[in-house]
Amino acid sequence: MSRTAIQELSDGQTLAQSFQAADKQLRVNRQGGKYILLKLSDRSGTIVGMMWNADETTFDTFDRGDFIHCSGRTQIHNGALQMIVTEIQRMDPAEVDSSDFDRFDADQAESNLTRLRELLATISHPHLDALVQTYLKDEAFLQSFQLAAAAVTNHHAYPGGLLEHTVNMMELVRLISPRYGNLDTDLLMVGAFLHDLGKIDELKSSGEISYTDRGQLVGHIVIGVQRLNEKIAETESASGNAFPTELRHQLEHLVVSHHGLQEYGSPKIPVTLEAIALNHIDNLDAKLASYTSIIESDVAADGNWTNYHPSIGRKLWKGQS
Amino acid sequence: MSRTAIQELSDGQTLAQSFQAADKQLRVNRQGGKYILLKLSDRSGTIVGMMWNADETTFDTFDRGDFIHCSGRTQIHNGALQMIVTEIQRMDPAEVDSSDFDRFDADQAESNLTRLRELLATISHPHLDALVQTYLKDEAFLQSFQLAAAAVTNHHAYPGGLLEHTVNMMELVRLISPRYGNLDTDLLMVGAFLHDLGKIDELKSSGEISYTDRGQLVGHIVIGVQRLNEKIAETESASGNAFPTELRHQLEHLVVSHHGLQEYGSPKIPVTLEAIALNHIDNLDAKLASYTSIIESDVAADGNWTNYHPSIGRKLWKGQS
Amino acid sequence: MSRTAIQELSDGQTLAQSFQAADKQLRVNRQGGKYILLKLSDRSGTIVGMMWNADETTFDTFDRGDFIHCSGRTQIHNGALQMIVTEIQRMDPAEVDSSDFDRFDADQAESNLTRLRELLATISHPHLDALVQTYLKDEAFLQSFQLAAAAVTNHHAYPGGLLEHTVNMMELVRLISPRYGNLDTDLLMVGAFLHDLGKIDELKSSGEISYTDRGQLVGHIVIGVQRLNEKIAETESASGNAFPTELRHQLEHLVVSHHGLQEYGSPKIPVTLEAIALNHIDNLDAKLASYTSIIESDVAADGNWTNYHPSIGRKLWKGQS
Amino acid sequence: MSRTAIQELSDGQTLAQSFQAADKQLRVNRQGGKYILLKLSDRSGTIVGMMWNADETTFDTFDRGDFIHCSGRTQIHNGALQMIVTEIQRMDPAEVDSSDFDRFDADQAESNLTRLRELLATISHPHLDALVQTYLKDEAFLQSFQLAAAAVTNHHAYPGGLLEHTVNMMELVRLISPRYGNLDTDLLMVGAFLHDLGKIDELKSSGEISYTDRGQLVGHIVIGVQRLNEKIAETESASGNAFPTELRHQLEHLVVSHHGLQEYGSPKIPVTLEAIALNHIDNLDAKLASYTSIIESDVAADGNWTNYHPSIGRKLWKGQS
Amino acid sequence: MSRTAIQELSDGQTLAQSFQAADKQLRVNRQGGKYILLKLSDRSGTIVGMMWNADETTFDTFDRGDFIHCSGRTQIHNGALQMIVTEIQRMDPAEVDSSDFDRFDADQAESNLTRLRELLATISHPHLDALVQTYLKDEAFLQSFQLAAAAVTNHHAYPGGLLEHTVNMMELVRLISPRYGNLDTDLLMVGAFLHDLGKIDELKSSGEISYTDRGQLVGHIVIGVQRLNEKIAETESASGNAFPTELRHQLEHLVVSHHGLQEYGSPKIPVTLEAIALNHIDNLDAKLASYTSIIESDVAADGNWTNYHPSIGRKLWKGQS
Amino acid sequence: MSRTAIQELSDGQTLAQSFQAADKQLRVNRQGGKYILLKLSDRSGTIVGMMWNADETTFDTFDRGDFIHCSGRTQIHNGALQMIVTEIQRMDPAEVDSSDFDRFDADQAESNLTRLRELLATISHPHLDALVQTYLKDEAFLQSFQLAAAAVTNHHAYPGGLLEHTVNMMELVRLISPRYGNLDTDLLMVGAFLHDLGKIDELKSSGEISYTDRGQLVGHIVIGVQRLNEKIAETESASGNAFPTELRHQLEHLVVSHHGLQEYGSPKIPVTLEAIALNHIDNLDAKLASYTSIIESDVAADGNWTNYHPSIGRKLWKGQS
Repeated sequence: MSRTAIQELSDGQTLAQSFQAADKQLRVNRQGGKYILLKLSDRSGTIVGMMWNADETTFDTFDRGDFIHCSGRTQIHNGALQMIVTEIQRMDPAEVDSSDFDRFDADQAESNLTRLRELLATISHPHLDALVQTYLKDEAFLQSFQLAAAAVTNHHAYPGGLLEHTVNMMELVRLISPRYGNLDTDLLMVGAFLHDLGKIDELKSSGEISYTDRGQLVGHIVIGVQRLNEKIAETESASGNAFPTELRHQLEHLVVSHHGLQEYGSPKIPVTLEAIALNHIDNLDAKLASYTSIIESDVAADGNWTNYHPSIGRKLWKGQS
Repeated sequence: MSRTAIQELSDGQTLAQSFQAADKQLRVNRQGGKYILLKLSDRSGTIVGMMWNADETTFDTFDRGDFIHCSGRTQIHNGALQMIVTEIQRMDPAEVDSSDFDRFDADQAESNLTRLRELLATISHPHLDALVQTYLKDEAFLQSFQLAAAAVTNHHAYPGGLLEHTVNMMELVRLISPRYGNLDTDLLMVGAFLHDLGKIDELKSSGEISYTDRGQLVGHIVIGVQRLNEKIAETESASGNAFPTELRHQLEHLVVSHHGLQEYGSPKIPVTLEAIALNHIDNLDAKLASYTSIIESDVAADGNWTNYHPSIGRKLWKGQS
Repeated sequence: MSRTAIQELSDGQTLAQSFQAADKQLRVNRQGGKYILLKLSDRSGTIVGMMWNADETTFDTFDRGDFIHCSGRTQIHNGALQMIVTEIQRMDPAEVDSSDFDRFDADQAESNLTRLRELLATISHPHLDALVQTYLKDEAFLQSFQLAAAAVTNHHAYPGGLLEHTVNMMELVRLISPRYGNLDTDLLMVGAFLHDLGKIDELKSSGEISYTDRGQLVGHIVIGVQRLNEKIAETESASGNAFPTELRHQLEHLVVSHHGLQEYGSPKIPVTLEAIALNHIDNLDAKLASYTSIIESDVAADGNWTNYHPSIGRKLWKGQS
Repeated sequence: MSRTAIQELSDGQTLAQSFQAADKQLRVNRQGGKYILLKLSDRSGTIVGMMWNADETTFDTFDRGDFIHCSGRTQIHNGALQMIVTEIQRMDPAEVDSSDFDRFDADQAESNLTRLRELLATISHPHLDALVQTYLKDEAFLQSFQLAAAAVTNHHAYPGGLLEHTVNMMELVRLISPRYGNLDTDLLMVGAFLHDLGKIDELKSSGEISYTDRGQLVGHIVIGVQRLNEKIAETESASGNAFPTELRHQLEHLVVSHHGLQEYGSPKIPVTLEAIALNHIDNLDAKLASYTSIIESDVAADGNWTNYHPSIGRKLWKGQS
Repeated sequence: MSRTAIQELSDGQTLAQSFQAADKQLRVNRQGGKYILLKLSDRSGTIVGMMWNADETTFDTFDRGDFIHCSGRTQIHNGALQMIVTEIQRMDPAEVDSSDFDRFDADQAESNLTRLRELLATISHPHLDALVQTYLKDEAFLQSFQLAAAAVTNHHAYPGGLLEHTVNMMELVRLISPRYGNLDTDLLMVGAFLHDLGKIDELKSSGEISYTDRGQLVGHIVIGVQRLNEKIAETESASGNAFPTELRHQLEHLVVSHHGLQEYGSPKIPVTLEAIALNHIDNLDAKLASYTSIIESDVAADGNWTNYHPSIGRKLWKGQS
Repeated sequence: MSRTAIQELSDGQTLAQSFQAADKQLRVNRQGGKYILLKLSDRSGTIVGMMWNADETTFDTFDRGDFIHCSGRTQIHNGALQMIVTEIQRMDPAEVDSSDFDRFDADQAESNLTRLRELLATISHPHLDALVQTYLKDEAFLQSFQLAAAAVTNHHAYPGGLLEHTVNMMELVRLISPRYGNLDTDLLMVGAFLHDLGKIDELKSSGEISYTDRGQLVGHIVIGVQRLNEKIAETESASGNAFPTELRHQLEHLVVSHHGLQEYGSPKIPVTLEAIALNHIDNLDAKLASYTSIIESDVAADGNWTNYHPSIGRKLWKGQS
């Protein structure tokens, strides 16, 4: 029997299929009865599961992160879909079709990485070229870059999302920058490449995406500069040439200022043309990505409009049904 | 003797050449002596002129807007260049090389208009196409569009600037929009075309650019919708077909929301993907244009940085001298 | 048996009477049982109804908007009154006393309309008089104006509320304006009349009050100007006289600026004395109406204070109990 | 020769008439020459005077506040009118027509006071009546109330302005309050009477209006409550009856909250209907008064618009010239 | 059997012990069954209690504020601990160990009062000394000061908290003030003593801490000034000496401005060095106290971080587990 | 003849003494005459000098930074003191008493450094101790730290000011921290030591204090973290022990968050108790220092109040004259 992706589920479906147990809690209801509260996930999304009249015996048969086979039925509760689970069986990972669960799209990542290399290959400035080569030779970096998410919620909030967003921005740089004669396209291209790399350490992108301690205490902007400084040092020691001080400050400024305003977390606002361009290009891609994702995941019944989303302070037009 | 453009003047130059008298005032200094305060202009810019010990006789020989031949010397006063005028003679317009004074670049406008037609020709949606044809057939509109400025100060603040900014945005739409599958490129292209057309009536673009009464009382966003409604009516009456109501509201929304936030003057914030894209593309082009113009016109002595500009709350990096 | 209005219901009452089914949903509870969630309304207000152990059979006997006879009992749940419904029977509209359900008070509307005509009759400025006559001759306009609400929630949020608010403001203009010698009372009176007319198209005032697509995309301020332009054109074509351009801009400005600040949705802030007066008079009437309605509908047990209302950021004093 | 009021002066007038020397300074110019800088005033306004080539001899012939006879000529300097004074002679106050200098309009104040008494006579609530009688019996209070200004700049910024503003507001209460059934008109009337009385001690209203130390350290809102508490104590001791505690808090709340928002200096925001009404009525009268005064005192050459006034963030429409 | 303090309770404990019934409500659930909702408290905190299948008989056996003996079991519900109560018995206060319930720590208060006297004894300025002696001689004041809370929620929100916070601040003044030569330590010490005394009347500190009517209508800043004025009058009448006017204004200013900004409720911002110091010292102690209390009462499972607290807009680091 | 410090100069003094020429410009006045505009400085302050009728000959006899002997007279011009210079003679530095010009107070710096060492010696945490020892052994660091200013304007804006401010804060930590049991005093002490060290590279503290390019592009917060990372690396390589990762993040967080809010330039807001304490202690010392300096340097004639200072949005009380 073929599996239905979580995103495709609708009200009143009877199911018996695999899920990943993203979270589990044993709870007691008001009358003293026990039940298991589940967070079930696959690559398409997440759904709450409730198993009534459950107890420690069932609860202890599987761990968070395990694959489980669940039988039950979907229903709408308080406007959200959930699943009433009547039976749970732990699965051997070998039984599972990993393509159902792997939110990371390896093909897309591979293709994004190829495009990243092509775009970086357009850089002719020797010091910038030497710097990006240092990054591209660092396999551990490439590995973690490929897997990183760009956010916990919001735009590109999935493993591989950081690379996707980065390559998108670099494409926009390639298209837009030559139209503005005063922009240094090489510098702006490297800025787009570097701007969010601190997110690799700010976020834990496997399992539930969440902030690391370092991420919460220091933040991706400062981490990004720290990372850049390490890579400049590697570049210098590999080449034996000093990296130009002013160029270093230009790159640091692009990372530091890319949120555009101090109230958005940039300790310095953009003061170079490239930094101003980077901030706006970042905004353009991030806003279009997140608004598109809000429209696509919206479940409002009204055909023309999404629900009101407090994070963006508005309902969005979904198009005439 | 060849004429030196105002933008090219430096401290301590002796001059005897043509200017346009943008403004003139006869004043009395503290000791009771009279002098003439002039605003001298050519197409490259504006400079203050002072003629000491002048009187009504000289003052009455020319009017505001006249071309005058001025002799004198430049000097720095309070950080700005001015000209001490020792002699003034009214000129016959025929004596003047009009290319020295005409701030409107007809060739650029012509080429922008051609590009505008090409970009609008990409529209395949029949109702949108019919609408833009109505605009393109309206010679009076094209004439005033070509001559309009996009602002009093700030970005594209010169005759022809509105067309320049509009075509720039449409080019960005052409480059960027196809990368985002959910965007309706035709709709976005027409939105870019329409978004600032209300400025034709909001600003008086000949002579000193300034706001019209209608501009100050009603503003270019509402005027832009009024204009659009007239053109839709013309389109309907020309074709005999009703313009689709929902499409009309989409276009009105693009005009109404393009400033992005109510505090920036949009009575409604963007709620369609095209409106969100339009707001960000507008921002990108406007900010790059205005920051570039601030850098280019900055007169700070310090090689690396412009002066502090209160309107943008920062100094800008001009590049290492 | 006489019917008890929803507003008059208290905890623990046993009822068997008519309601209108403003909304109905068939839901499944956590244990898999079905129930019907109802929104019951009459002209005095709205109450949630729950019918436990219901199924499709009952659910399908009536539609949204139908009148139904419900038996059951009221109770407090989470601080709000609800009704546990044990029996539902669809009613023939002829069985219902329409005065119990019609939120629109026809007598009040009639009397408001009469007063509107009287207040507009005070206008002596010929062009303004001609304009308001055009409105007053438009029966379709008068019909929809009478039925329109002034808001979805907040002040005057009921059919007829727009007319009520408009006449209130015009009364304040009549009382206040002559005390300020620089105010043009005719202009201000017409401004009060026009300021919110765009709400007729912004809101769907029958059934649940809600925003129309046009309302959400364009907003009542711009719609109000569009409507005004149509009526000015009618006035011109009826009289054969051009409406003075400056006067048109004054009226448009009153509509455009009446929210007072851009962050409240006015694309232009008030710059004429009449516009400043209109903004403050609107505020005065709207705030008194909405605060009074908050006090009257508050259900807090504490005798002196309402609950905290997030929309106004405070508790209100209800008076010493 | 009849005297020309300062407000009536224009450029290039030759004068020989009386002024009051609001201020005088002996200065040295860059070349070492001495001159006297004067602030000349009459009841209609203030003008700067310059006496070149003056010295201690002339400077010492009069004091600040003296009446002086000045000969000279007016001129525009940096957009403002000033007077070049060539001769100064101290005048005996007896020589001066005091009606030329007295900014305080005794007739207007008398008539305002009469109206104040009439409006307060409408109060039927016995405790409120007793309280206002205590104020009305306090001759020293009435004297200082009559002479007080309502502001240093801005609305009603002249001796007598506080009484004028207070009576205006009480008139608005009389007209508006009965239209809103939930408002306690007596309470609101006394609130309007009391709301700004703290300004009597906050401002020094004779000579140049300025803040007192107490005004800057404590502010008129807290002073107003202090004053009220004193008057309540007097009322109690005169009548032998305790003033009701709750009523006292209502009155204190009206004074405390009348600025409407904490950022405008009210430590508590309005939470009673009367306090909300008072805040809006205050705003209405204050804004109309200050915008009218900006229009009337504006000196912009452009016939339709005032200059841009930073304090209100806009230009105002003066009406078509 | 020894009693477990509420703060020490954990999930799944079976209990039979004393509580105070801070609140009780008889409710009906969706199926029509009745239950009692309790707020149980002891000195360590508060917990929700639910007694299912209860009725009026049980409900009527005790009143709000009574001590009751409850049997039952704890459980986690929606992330918070609650108690399912199966049996309730009203207790005679004599049966209860009052040290379990008295949130007021008399020893701590006594010791704080002693320290307060010591710190006030350091004041050498004669008028300030006379003033604080008036306070210290007022037994009723000392009694209510000792029992007062400093807030409803937030920092020092318990009986005795106001004294605790006040003494803390006075200690900081003692330590810090002498390091800044321009500060008047006596004045600052009295300012710290006085700054929040208005809270004695703003809050009802016995039982549930809540705002009084006077507190909501007038606020502790204005009440604090009223109280100060009364005490200055007492001081004057006791000594026969006038209290210096300027010193009075300095003290009033310290109370009036101690919130630092108008938007935080200070009608005047600090303009004396002592007022600036007082604002920052208040902030330092209040923020450290409230953040510490948030960390200590946080129940998040994650070892390193508290939950997100909207009131402070962040999660707090609890230290590495 | 003894020299008068610039701060001690008053109106109308005749002088003949040494100054440092901080700046010089040769200018042409409106009538075409040349003059020299000087910025004259000594350790107490700065004054504008004007030498009329000067020419290139005089102008070329000295350079910016030279000591010059000036004769002339002081005068008030536009409310500020300036000096009319009649004679200029370049001086040999040997002729000058360097104590008149050296704004850096070596004794104070020495004593601050000693106190810094004492305060750092209180640290018992081994890793923190090892880290501060690395700093203390770095002579180049100590040298630049001693000379650094803490700001361009505002608090501690003089060479040595950074050390002064740092030691002040560390003293406050020593006094305050032990009173709050949850604070880690060692961590907070090191945080106070580190928090502003990035200013060493952000500002050029010799001559006119100004921002470096790196300072404007990257800012002292990010530079501070970069510096810290270098010193941790040195500490690790000196000791052979890894610095604990979590401790590193705690220190980085203290630097990153010490401005308290993102809008003040901190990319992360404080989330540890030490970070919250550091932010408030920084504020307390910085505000008291800058407000004291505003009072001390204020030149307002009114005895009780300073002028209005836009940077702090208020006048300050100077004390009763």
